[in-house]
Amino acid sequence: MTDTLVGIGAVKAASEILGDKWTPQLLRHFINEGTLRFCHLQDLAEGINPRTLSARLDSLEAEGIVEKVQTSTSRCEYRLSQKGYDLVPVLQQMQTWSEKYGSTIC
Amino acid sequence: MTDTLVGIGAVKAASEILGDKWTPQLLRHFINEGTLRFCHLQDLAEGINPRTLSARLDSLEAEGIVEKVQTSTSRCEYRLSQKGYDLVPVLQQMQTWSEKYGSTIC
Repeated sequence: MTDTLVGIGAVKAASEILGDKWTPQLLRHFINEGTLRFCHLQDLAEGINPRTLSARLDSLEAEGIVEKVQTSTSRCEYRLSQKGYDLVPVLQQMQTWSEKYGSTIC
Repeated sequence: MTDTLVGIGAVKAASEILGDKWTPQLLRHFINEGTLRFCHLQDLAEGINPRTLSARLDSLEAEGIVEKVQTSTSRCEYRLSQKGYDLVPVLQQMQTWSEKYGSTIC
């Protein structure tokens, strides 16, 4: 097991992204729904403040995980990039672990 | 892919633990070294404040990820529990992703 974990820094990028309170949930909605408008995503992520959602989307776009798609002059939507979809195996392993041990800290 | 990600809350526990700035690195040192004394761990995690390390260890112990082992009346050490070792596949997936895309946010 040990020698497959070669670098500390190499884990940091993914853990910082997924450690945000809202990001795993937002990724989950994109995985389920595909392309999403801002207001639809806001409905799905119950309890999120629009300002927080906007900041999260900007950050995920800057990190290349979410792409903004202009569907008409007045409307834009968001979807996962390939880099975003490649986080699915990480989320799956997190889920396996969390299901085994229960959400004891939630 | 989609139907294997059944719950949002189920991912939360792991992502909150691994999203902490120091935790992935501390887990990595335990995986490499096995049982560690506080001062040894402090040396390995360069730049960590002793107060922060103490708080992190307390928190990881409370979450059942790290175990405190009393080796003599005056000395105690720390090691991963099975629950802690079961985070290795999550860290491995994080590493695969981070290596593919580079540590662009570090």
